[in-house]
Amino acid sequence: MTPDAVEPSPFVRAQRYIADRVTEALDRLDPAAITTAVDLLARAPATFVYGAGRSGIIGRAFATRLVQIGLTAYVIGESVTPIVHRGDAVFILSGRGESQSSIQTANIVRREGAELIVLTGRATSKLAHISTVLLPLQFSEDPDRPRLAPLGTLFESASLRLTDAVVAELLRARGETEESMRRRHAIIV
Amino acid sequence: MTPDAVEPSPFVRAQRYIADRVTEALDRLDPAAITTAVDLLARAPATFVYGAGRSGIIGRAFATRLVQIGLTAYVIGESVTPIVHRGDAVFILSGRGESQSSIQTANIVRREGAELIVLTGRATSKLAHISTVLLPLQFSEDPDRPRLAPLGTLFESASLRLTDAVVAELLRARGETEESMRRRHAIIV
Amino acid sequence: MTPDAVEPSPFVRAQRYIADRVTEALDRLDPAAITTAVDLLARAPATFVYGAGRSGIIGRAFATRLVQIGLTAYVIGESVTPIVHRGDAVFILSGRGESQSSIQTANIVRREGAELIVLTGRATSKLAHISTVLLPLQFSEDPDRPRLAPLGTLFESASLRLTDAVVAELLRARGETEESMRRRHAIIV
Amino acid sequence: MTPDAVEPSPFVRAQRYIADRVTEALDRLDPAAITTAVDLLARAPATFVYGAGRSGIIGRAFATRLVQIGLTAYVIGESVTPIVHRGDAVFILSGRGESQSSIQTANIVRREGAELIVLTGRATSKLAHISTVLLPLQFSEDPDRPRLAPLGTLFESASLRLTDAVVAELLRARGETEESMRRRHAIIV
Repeated sequence: MTPDAVEPSPFVRAQRYIADRVTEALDRLDPAAITTAVDLLARAPATFVYGAGRSGIIGRAFATRLVQIGLTAYVIGESVTPIVHRGDAVFILSGRGESQSSIQTANIVRREGAELIVLTGRATSKLAHISTVLLPLQFSEDPDRPRLAPLGTLFESASLRLTDAVVAELLRARGETEESMRRRHAIIV
Repeated sequence: MTPDAVEPSPFVRAQRYIADRVTEALDRLDPAAITTAVDLLARAPATFVYGAGRSGIIGRAFATRLVQIGLTAYVIGESVTPIVHRGDAVFILSGRGESQSSIQTANIVRREGAELIVLTGRATSKLAHISTVLLPLQFSEDPDRPRLAPLGTLFESASLRLTDAVVAELLRARGETEESMRRRHAIIV
Repeated sequence: MTPDAVEPSPFVRAQRYIADRVTEALDRLDPAAITTAVDLLARAPATFVYGAGRSGIIGRAFATRLVQIGLTAYVIGESVTPIVHRGDAVFILSGRGESQSSIQTANIVRREGAELIVLTGRATSKLAHISTVLLPLQFSEDPDRPRLAPLGTLFESASLRLTDAVVAELLRARGETEESMRRRHAIIV
Repeated sequence: MTPDAVEPSPFVRAQRYIADRVTEALDRLDPAAITTAVDLLARAPATFVYGAGRSGIIGRAFATRLVQIGLTAYVIGESVTPIVHRGDAVFILSGRGESQSSIQTANIVRREGAELIVLTGRATSKLAHISTVLLPLQFSEDPDRPRLAPLGTLFESASLRLTDAVVAELLRARGETEESMRRRHAIIV
């Protein structure tokens, strides 16, 4: 399926490398953890998404979908985000589980009695330890990775695919369809 | 109260110039329009704020306060903004009433049956004409203005003071206090 | 590799469905168009990224990487974005090629003499027609798609993988490494 | 100048209260501190603005103006913000000088050798102590303040007026005009 038999370009190699590493990481996830996370998200009065840098960007894309499904969702750091209440779900994306703001956010929301779903590349981080539901993404390291998927690329790419697949679960759990989502599509000018 | 009798610095001149021009513009506002706008905002199931560029930035600051007062507010363009429903209030800030996105947003929300509050520096713009409530800000032009308050400075500054004063009205109308607002202060890490 | 032989969950089906459809779409891309786009991005004095909604979110993730590679990049709509000059590259992501703001942005930047790279799911849109370089993503439609990848999910997922693979090309073209990118990692608190 | 002799509305009282308290606070500022801050901003290779919540919103409005003046400016937390270098200016707005993210940002930038301008309502905070240039805003407290200007209203309003007045200084220092600024006005769609 490659255009020719010669060495594929960095573009071709990178896009396949990312796809394969992400698929491996998602296949390793415990299905029970996904089910627990989906249940929490489907029932939470509100979900608050947080991530620093590119992880936060992927989190925003997820929050948009939650709203289109008819759930109440906020991004911590945006203008209109209210306070977290007991029973709300907080979904933190953090590749290395190290950013101070993620840890501080996690501590605050646990103290408030909210449920904490942590999506992270490091299952042993402090952030992982204080989670209610842990979604750990493990990527095997190899010499090609730094050139084909530098920094948090694999984590961020896996986070988008994972959250999009959670959306498919939520559609079923909530009896929603693409059509009902489309009717909740915000004004985009 | 000036530091000395010599020519005041651009800093001193600008801050006073802005304060005085903004006070004049706010004093010229029809109190009945403010009352109508406050009533709409106090009763709307949700308020959607929109502005392009620096006007949108001031709009975000207003939306944050609406949420702290216990109202439901969104910024059009942020990730979690749902659709506008009949009866919702839409608050558009537009200095010249000309940005395509503001006009398009206004047309969409009027078609949906939402109430449209327009805060603008041009009472004769197309945007002003389709508003439910018009809050026109008029600034007298003079030769100092371009150096002391270039581009939309006066409009943006007046918009912040106006919306902050609307917050004082909403506090009374909703029986809220600084203390109740503080308890709704979002996590800021 | 599925956890059991029974019907896989929506989560498992969706994540694989998305991966496969995205791989197909990226395999169909003309390698020459990717090469042209990479050349433009590697040489442009500045690159401006634009997208509405979730497309814009993916665009932000790409802009962050361009900056880490040592290129100058901006997101149209953020606070510090300067004007576009002749020779700059503008990268617009638009699933359906229909948003007014994307078309208006495209018209403005072409008038200024900037190069326009359009990543879109509709190669026949007006937006596609005014591009300098067109990167069309084609997804075959089937009855599972609405439940497994509703709305623009495939386009957005393909956009993230495509732009991440462009980053791998730019790393080589510019002689950059993960280490040099890490040293340009912004303060994230 | 009030429309009638009866008790003025909360709107009228609030807008005047804010204007007067802000004027007092700005008049108390040491002109030498403003001059030092303006000099730093006029010469810095790049300026990085940071603030949490509404303070950050006002910071974004300032960053937009710096770019229009022809300076290089970034908002810490936006997608395209590069790293801070020795000699760059960092401008932090923090009403109470207490947010962890502001303090952490300040510590990082001082370690990198950047100049730190702190605009704050608390001259005795830890943040104030590590600044290169301190711009302290002092507001006298009184019983009307909580209803007319709750939470950080006075600080934020003073921050906008102060930064707009700094823009007037920078216009002169850099030989810029409203017309040259207008030519740098970003695409706003």
